[in-house]
Amino acid sequence: MSDKNLTAILYEKDDLRLEDLPVPEPGQGEVLLEMKEVGICGSDVHYWTHGRIGDFVVKAPMILGHEASAVVSKLGPGVTNLKEGDRVAIEPGVPCRLCNYCKSGRYNLCLDMKFCATPPYHGNLARYYVHAADFCFKLPDHVSFEEGALLEPLSVGVHATNRAGVGLGNTVLVCGAGPIGLVNILTAKAKGASLICVTDIDESRLKVAKEIGADFAIKVTSGDPQVVAQAIEEAVGDKVDITIECSGAAKSIQTAVYATKSGGVVVLVGLGQDLVEVPVVNAGVREVDIRGIFRYVNCYPTALAMVASGRVNVKPLITHRFKLEEAVKAFEAAKRGEGIKVMISCGRK
Amino acid sequence: MSDKNLTAILYEKDDLRLEDLPVPEPGQGEVLLEMKEVGICGSDVHYWTHGRIGDFVVKAPMILGHEASAVVSKLGPGVTNLKEGDRVAIEPGVPCRLCNYCKSGRYNLCLDMKFCATPPYHGNLARYYVHAADFCFKLPDHVSFEEGALLEPLSVGVHATNRAGVGLGNTVLVCGAGPIGLVNILTAKAKGASLICVTDIDESRLKVAKEIGADFAIKVTSGDPQVVAQAIEEAVGDKVDITIECSGAAKSIQTAVYATKSGGVVVLVGLGQDLVEVPVVNAGVREVDIRGIFRYVNCYPTALAMVASGRVNVKPLITHRFKLEEAVKAFEAAKRGEGIKVMISCGRK
Amino acid sequence: MSDKNLTAILYEKDDLRLEDLPVPEPGQGEVLLEMKEVGICGSDVHYWTHGRIGDFVVKAPMILGHEASAVVSKLGPGVTNLKEGDRVAIEPGVPCRLCNYCKSGRYNLCLDMKFCATPPYHGNLARYYVHAADFCFKLPDHVSFEEGALLEPLSVGVHATNRAGVGLGNTVLVCGAGPIGLVNILTAKAKGASLICVTDIDESRLKVAKEIGADFAIKVTSGDPQVVAQAIEEAVGDKVDITIECSGAAKSIQTAVYATKSGGVVVLVGLGQDLVEVPVVNAGVREVDIRGIFRYVNCYPTALAMVASGRVNVKPLITHRFKLEEAVKAFEAAKRGEGIKVMISCGRK
Amino acid sequence: MSDKNLTAILYEKDDLRLEDLPVPEPGQGEVLLEMKEVGICGSDVHYWTHGRIGDFVVKAPMILGHEASAVVSKLGPGVTNLKEGDRVAIEPGVPCRLCNYCKSGRYNLCLDMKFCATPPYHGNLARYYVHAADFCFKLPDHVSFEEGALLEPLSVGVHATNRAGVGLGNTVLVCGAGPIGLVNILTAKAKGASLICVTDIDESRLKVAKEIGADFAIKVTSGDPQVVAQAIEEAVGDKVDITIECSGAAKSIQTAVYATKSGGVVVLVGLGQDLVEVPVVNAGVREVDIRGIFRYVNCYPTALAMVASGRVNVKPLITHRFKLEEAVKAFEAAKRGEGIKVMISCGRK
Repeated sequence: MSDKNLTAILYEKDDLRLEDLPVPEPGQGEVLLEMKEVGICGSDVHYWTHGRIGDFVVKAPMILGHEASAVVSKLGPGVTNLKEGDRVAIEPGVPCRLCNYCKSGRYNLCLDMKFCATPPYHGNLARYYVHAADFCFKLPDHVSFEEGALLEPLSVGVHATNRAGVGLGNTVLVCGAGPIGLVNILTAKAKGASLICVTDIDESRLKVAKEIGADFAIKVTSGDPQVVAQAIEEAVGDKVDITIECSGAAKSIQTAVYATKSGGVVVLVGLGQDLVEVPVVNAGVREVDIRGIFRYVNCYPTALAMVASGRVNVKPLITHRFKLEEAVKAFEAAKRGEGIKVMISCGRK
Repeated sequence: MSDKNLTAILYEKDDLRLEDLPVPEPGQGEVLLEMKEVGICGSDVHYWTHGRIGDFVVKAPMILGHEASAVVSKLGPGVTNLKEGDRVAIEPGVPCRLCNYCKSGRYNLCLDMKFCATPPYHGNLARYYVHAADFCFKLPDHVSFEEGALLEPLSVGVHATNRAGVGLGNTVLVCGAGPIGLVNILTAKAKGASLICVTDIDESRLKVAKEIGADFAIKVTSGDPQVVAQAIEEAVGDKVDITIECSGAAKSIQTAVYATKSGGVVVLVGLGQDLVEVPVVNAGVREVDIRGIFRYVNCYPTALAMVASGRVNVKPLITHRFKLEEAVKAFEAAKRGEGIKVMISCGRK
Repeated sequence: MSDKNLTAILYEKDDLRLEDLPVPEPGQGEVLLEMKEVGICGSDVHYWTHGRIGDFVVKAPMILGHEASAVVSKLGPGVTNLKEGDRVAIEPGVPCRLCNYCKSGRYNLCLDMKFCATPPYHGNLARYYVHAADFCFKLPDHVSFEEGALLEPLSVGVHATNRAGVGLGNTVLVCGAGPIGLVNILTAKAKGASLICVTDIDESRLKVAKEIGADFAIKVTSGDPQVVAQAIEEAVGDKVDITIECSGAAKSIQTAVYATKSGGVVVLVGLGQDLVEVPVVNAGVREVDIRGIFRYVNCYPTALAMVASGRVNVKPLITHRFKLEEAVKAFEAAKRGEGIKVMISCGRK
Repeated sequence: MSDKNLTAILYEKDDLRLEDLPVPEPGQGEVLLEMKEVGICGSDVHYWTHGRIGDFVVKAPMILGHEASAVVSKLGPGVTNLKEGDRVAIEPGVPCRLCNYCKSGRYNLCLDMKFCATPPYHGNLARYYVHAADFCFKLPDHVSFEEGALLEPLSVGVHATNRAGVGLGNTVLVCGAGPIGLVNILTAKAKGASLICVTDIDESRLKVAKEIGADFAIKVTSGDPQVVAQAIEEAVGDKVDITIECSGAAKSIQTAVYATKSGGVVVLVGLGQDLVEVPVVNAGVREVDIRGIFRYVNCYPTALAMVASGRVNVKPLITHRFKLEEAVKAFEAAKRGEGIKVMISCGRK
């Protein structure tokens, strides 16, 4: 196989192939990127194993990958913010720039968002890829490509904690200690949370959560959300100011409400079933607000500043490394759920 | 029966009596009030017919009433904001003033709140009553005692629309056209909402809602929340910016989510069952926030300014009038659900 | 003179000419507009009489006009939100859509903003004009072209009162009763301000201000800001919650601080000299915030909703009407400062 | 001299005496405190050297001191949040609890605030002192009395950065590297600021600022605020998001505006002359908000959480230690401006 632009394409459920595609040309305001590192996200794996996520169905071959860093290889017309050779992190969604959401600072809600590796839009797990120049963020020399790729999940933590209003001295509960739980712990700490409690059903995940900064780790064994909430309250010494629910489990959402102080906030990050029994009277009369998140908005600059200033260390999140040529092996490792984050190196050698 | 201080006392479920009590003495920072008008709230009726609301149980005889206006009759020590003869509206809850909620401007969440006619605290449906002077708000001469009493439900509208962030040009859905739905319509309009849609299952209530300012009134006939949301969207021309749910019905809460724009807010005002199936993924990924309310906080001055400036006309809400001596008849009328607001006049003649 | 596209061009200070230009072609995402009504703004007059405003200098011939309404005449490629024949109001500034300000909902601060009739960008006082389609807002049939043109100054009121946080029951001081003072009065009332006090040095302007809704009008005669603030406090009965300073006069800015309650806000709308003696200790220790505004952002939809719903009546602002052929006469009238708003009709007959 | 309650009393300018006073009795809701550590604040020194600060004049003998920690010695009636022997930090201001400011979470603006060592209210530089129990915050065992006393200046940093909205990834300029500048640096870092630049005219203060965490330290040598702003911009690589002005110098306030990004915030913490020439057009059209602070509000719990969780280390701020018997010597040291914070130990041995 020649290798102008080796690319990981999902043809359909369980059919991930590496093929050589032509190198694309950057259009107005775009740049051609020589891809460096691409992390595998749970959604990539889910498209591979199920062919869909909710209403998003893989109907045509789709390139995977959206947690990525690269080097600018060629500028399209009108690009002024970058130059060839710049090392960049790629914010993977490009909105329409025209609608009220785009104009009012909530472009993540744009109905015409083109987001890498969300059907029908291609991702960037390839040698070369074209992206809007203004959604590429220049990395300082001391920030690695791996760190650049990790700005994507880190941005989810930035957005979730922004929506939660995490601030100095807050006590924070993070439900679920997977990669997204972990970035929320990192971000909450960087914002000055004074105490972080994490829950999970998996002991090894809790261990990692404590290593990266959680103060308390509680293994969920009871199926009764009020019992779990009580255990959290006993560990923390009080209900928490803010809960960031990353599991998507119905009972965990209930726990989130019960464990949060009156006047506090529950942010729903994890996604599971749509209809969930929520204790609305308990939440309502205690003015515990319930807020969801959709990806992130205006978070890449913050995430980059965190990493570049050394305030957050994301490196421990990477536990597995593969080459682009080994993409299927990388997805298999990600599917087995070992470690935390699988990173694929897209460079030729 | 002598009549020093004729008082409406709920002894237990279904046992409301008028008795003559001693006139109380105002303590430090308190005033003795000669009661003028007291509106009957759904909660008053519910205590009368059920003896409890949730965990609040009438275990000892309790004076009813908390929507009230009065004349200052005597000052307790240390009172400087009022003088004898002042006409006032009474904010019925007095918080502890010591806890973090009280200090941070959310005294409605104070755990030691003493709230009129919420067990074990007495209300003010009587000839005389003692209250904290700083929770009595001086009425201008041109604001009537009836209007003063109506500041209480109006404050619920102020708080709910504050929590919702209703602002200029917003489109607002109000679910439920009972008294609380109506005050939310009045308040949303006063805040500049450009379009208000109201839903109810009762045609006559919808008629009143349109008379006081709703632009669209939709009778809910379907049991499918998505169908109802679709009907609302068709009437309004789009999903709404904000929904204020005043019915407490589970299906109406679901409708509220479906009918609200991405990035919008659903405020839960009505209370029904605690565990309700909420479409959390739909709400979450569209960042439709869900917020409850508990009574109101810092809303009396705003409600008074609205009425005093003529920006809001609450008078049409009063449909029935009784004397204190007729309190049981008044409660029977309120129980039948005729009209909107039953007002009891506490003056002797 | 042939009249394909009669256009009002400012060649330099005091040199405003009507010339026939070619009809332009709409590009990608743009529409060709048949202009209907264009209001004259103080800045238009200032460019005409001074050739500059601050650092913005008319170095090449510039078409004037930026308060405008039109009919869509032709769609450029990619336009989907409009169709030929649509009646629209034109938001006159088009930002870069790429920078952090554009992405975070503050596009008015975009450094690459192209704003009509701010050098070096042309305005739209002409028969035909091309504009970005997404900055054209469709007018309902019952909203007139004159009202459409007035959305521009009204948007200044929306933005200023947004920045001020004007809300239900607020007392508001508006300093200066020119057109911008008036739109702030209209907007503050629409947001539920319970009391509006206006100051000016011109009795006739104050009269208009009272007619459109100010509760108190105070003629400024003293040169001592504290004396003026005292007069305002006496009229209102207290300091005000919020002051919107529209005069730009140094002493009025001082008055604004002195007249505002602790914890309140002063918004600076009027522009005068740059260095102004501000009582920073008085403002600081009373936590009176000082906030400026630059044009407006995301305000056209709100302004349109206000007018379309009848909540705000801007028609009384128009006091003079001219045809495009009479543009110089129109500017002379505007320069004399008679009336409030001069409107130029750009239609051919 | 007997020593029931040795107390440092300022009789008038330059007349600070140690006298033995009776031990006071705690009233309703109050506690008697056995004082432990009291820091000397610039305001204490200023009252001693000038007999006044602005309108606050020492007209009668006044006990100094307001940065304090203590042990609870006796409970007054009704106290439930503390018990004898509790180690506490003392928030020195007790508001009226009745006014709108107190009820709406801005009690620092209460007009009837009783604040330690602000005439005519006594401070707590003594063996014993009585204070409102709810303004005493229990210290965990591992937080020292000195740290407890330092919660007072730290709370100024918490409030200033709250008002500024300092958040994750912000770049922050702190003007003035005195004790208040230093606590702002500590707090801004704890909130996730990615870069902090500090200015001062004193090299040794800048050195300390860098030691506790400032990234850039700029010695101000030019009298031209634009030149200084330019130097800051060059060091930082851009204007800053937020400036916290702690010097009170007029030119530094101007620098603060020029050095701050459009859409940013300048917080005025330092107090100097009242009327300062502010570049209001520059600030206004760039929407750089100017906000003052008055002491702090609801900041003690946050400051305590910061110190208790180890997120902030305030210990390096203490450079001098004296015993209560040496109070005059301590004030002389503070007056000489050596070091950062002078601490007085109030225990008997």
